Amino acid sequence: MYEEMMKDITSRARKAARELGILSDAAKGSVLRKMADKMEMKRDLLKNANKEDISRAEKIGKNAAFIDRLRLDDKRIDAMCSMMREVAELDDPLGRVLERNERPNGLIIEKVSVPIGVIGIIYESRPNVTADCAVLCLKSGNAVILRGGSDAISSNKAIYGVMKAAADEEGLVEDAFILMEDTSRALVDEMLKASEGIDLIMPRGGESLIQRVVEQSRIPVIKHYKGICHVYVDSGADLEKAGNICFNAKVQRPGVCNAMETLLVHKDIARDFLPDIASRLIGSDVELRGCERTVSILSGYEVKKASEDDYATEYLDLKLNIKIVDSLDEAVTHIEKFGSHHSDAIITDNEISAETFTRSVDSAAVYVNASTRFTDGGEFGKGAEIGISTDKLHARGPMGINELTTYKYVIKGTGQIRT
Amino acid sequence: MYEEMMKDITSRARKAARELGILSDAAKGSVLRKMADKMEMKRDLLKNANKEDISRAEKIGKNAAFIDRLRLDDKRIDAMCSMMREVAELDDPLGRVLERNERPNGLIIEKVSVPIGVIGIIYESRPNVTADCAVLCLKSGNAVILRGGSDAISSNKAIYGVMKAAADEEGLVEDAFILMEDTSRALVDEMLKASEGIDLIMPRGGESLIQRVVEQSRIPVIKHYKGICHVYVDSGADLEKAGNICFNAKVQRPGVCNAMETLLVHKDIARDFLPDIASRLIGSDVELRGCERTVSILSGYEVKKASEDDYATEYLDLKLNIKIVDSLDEAVTHIEKFGSHHSDAIITDNEISAETFTRSVDSAAVYVNASTRFTDGGEFGKGAEIGISTDKLHARGPMGINELTTYKYVIKGTGQIRT
Repeated sequence: MYEEMMKDITSRARKAARELGILSDAAKGSVLRKMADKMEMKRDLLKNANKEDISRAEKIGKNAAFIDRLRLDDKRIDAMCSMMREVAELDDPLGRVLERNERPNGLIIEKVSVPIGVIGIIYESRPNVTADCAVLCLKSGNAVILRGGSDAISSNKAIYGVMKAAADEEGLVEDAFILMEDTSRALVDEMLKASEGIDLIMPRGGESLIQRVVEQSRIPVIKHYKGICHVYVDSGADLEKAGNICFNAKVQRPGVCNAMETLLVHKDIARDFLPDIASRLIGSDVELRGCERTVSILSGYEVKKASEDDYATEYLDLKLNIKIVDSLDEAVTHIEKFGSHHSDAIITDNEISAETFTRSVDSAAVYVNASTRFTDGGEFGKGAEIGISTDKLHARGPMGINELTTYKYVIKGTGQIRT
Repeated sequence: MYEEMMKDITSRARKAARELGILSDAAKGSVLRKMADKMEMKRDLLKNANKEDISRAEKIGKNAAFIDRLRLDDKRIDAMCSMMREVAELDDPLGRVLERNERPNGLIIEKVSVPIGVIGIIYESRPNVTADCAVLCLKSGNAVILRGGSDAISSNKAIYGVMKAAADEEGLVEDAFILMEDTSRALVDEMLKASEGIDLIMPRGGESLIQRVVEQSRIPVIKHYKGICHVYVDSGADLEKAGNICFNAKVQRPGVCNAMETLLVHKDIARDFLPDIASRLIGSDVELRGCERTVSILSGYEVKKASEDDYATEYLDLKLNIKIVDSLDEAVTHIEKFGSHHSDAIITDNEISAETFTRSVDSAAVYVNASTRFTDGGEFGKGAEIGISTDKLHARGPMGINELTTYKYVIKGTGQIRT
């Protein structure tokens, strides 16, 4: 039964994808603006639906962080609407000529950006993901199958209903975005097997969701995994800049994947650098865990001993590991061992150190003298992002609409044959 | 035991990958040229090792096509040596600045090409794949784990030994390329689970190998799958060009993935076009299978009735399906249903038809007025290729050394923090 249901969903999506792929950017823009208008008008409907989800979650005793992720308030509705209008204005990601090559035999070979096809998104309790993913996939010409968590199903259905009404009014092809209203696990299992019908799966959520998807999927997956980000303060660092960057990377928004989780400090400047930054961090309620040398230098402060597990943990919280290293090389080795290939920074005025660090650290974003907090589609100039890939294939780091495209070669000849 | 073996292999490869990633292009060039020189000198050793494989294959009754794929003669050894020298001369695929973006806050964001890391290749009985893959991965800074079929193990060990001796003489990092001499299936099973140690798996071989790999792998896979390629002769075609292109696409080298398997002909020109091309094809021993209308038009020739299965078959042989369609749209629908998203062509002088076809056909290479046989790394100006991807993620179509890279963002600041 679930197999049949999934076949029906993917064949509708595949059909829609063929039409979407050749739809003009202007037509997609009209749909997106209409969605934003409708979303604004229907905000009470959205908030009422969300209340159902919230009260269900409260009844089963979900914690405050969960409820916060689930909540749809005016601010979040406004954010969805502006996102829709902004995405409508972004340059068309399709039809870009990525390479052009005129061959000696006269063939003209162009590498042209095209949609991926059908994208499946599996997510948890944030209802705004429904809108984000539908909008970014539509702009990039992809059909999308949305499978949100059962906790947010009322909100997701309401958001979907409003978007769908706007799409219908504008005459958008049926099934350009499909919400799986049946949230049975068995249907997700079928979804992950549907390699004929879905071209790419993106899981958005916690570690266990991502691992289950990777384990089961027969479809290519792009993971948006955890961020264990490092700042390494080199012996050649300007310590004032270093202090400001470290403070920002930890404190400005600790609950996100591009926040610093471990601070690495070169031994030669540790005594000068650590007391000041420790006092600033502790003043902002950051709990510190240090290596032996750190604990000794910071003996006047409350610093726990950091364990190997601590170095491998994405805190997403006001907690920070501090480790003193003997060399840049030791810093790189630590990042290789404990990092998650997300975002890592070196603070230094020494160009050779900067060059060695950026070449050696194998992460999506490698910084010199700036906060890791900049790893974000908007900050990178990409507009809205569908996530931050911690994978190496196809897309790495912030994924905007261009990263939701693939390419084909279009070859124009005048009768050429191969000899 | 196999789990431990695989862990040892991947940790050696991972270590090598870190050093390879920062090795200069000049150093890699010297290794490649030394490999070519040594391969030429040791050709007798290679041929003797190959004789062992051949006689083993003959003893167990392998067919002539199999023996041909397995054979290593002077011509193939020469081809390996020239490939090595050519790859040495190609532009460095690493460190290319793919995008550069100076942000309003002064951050300079560069998207820079870097190696993927550790690549696993699983292949069958062609010993030259051992050299091709080691060479292309080395040039692109990737460590590679090679798992060839047991039928070619003596040849593979000999090729590997010669390449390794050259690498050692040039002081290349140990384990830059590793041949799995143990060809147990259980070890491959472990290989496909090693997602920590291997970044990308590429299966090269027949359909059943590829399916097994896709089914089992926990590691991203890029498939080099079959080519069911079409040529569509539009009502607006120049029939002389069309005849030459169709003849070339079928006959010039029928055993390869970019050869035409099905000819689609617009009904309006079918009577004019078909008899002449049929007679040329039959004159070159091509067996024809046609739709009803084709059989009727070609009643003077021997044409079998084509089945649905025929349309879905990659013949790799002197066989061709012919189908008459009522419209360009029907041609596109046929290609969508039966094609393999590899290479498809339209022959037409009508620009609107050409544009509609190239936009609508979702294949790695879409041609206007040229033979599908051009889908090839060399013909596309990429130098040697590691294969032709029929997937949509990361790389599509011919994969050269640039497609064996990923990227990272290198962000340079002067103390920027996020507000």
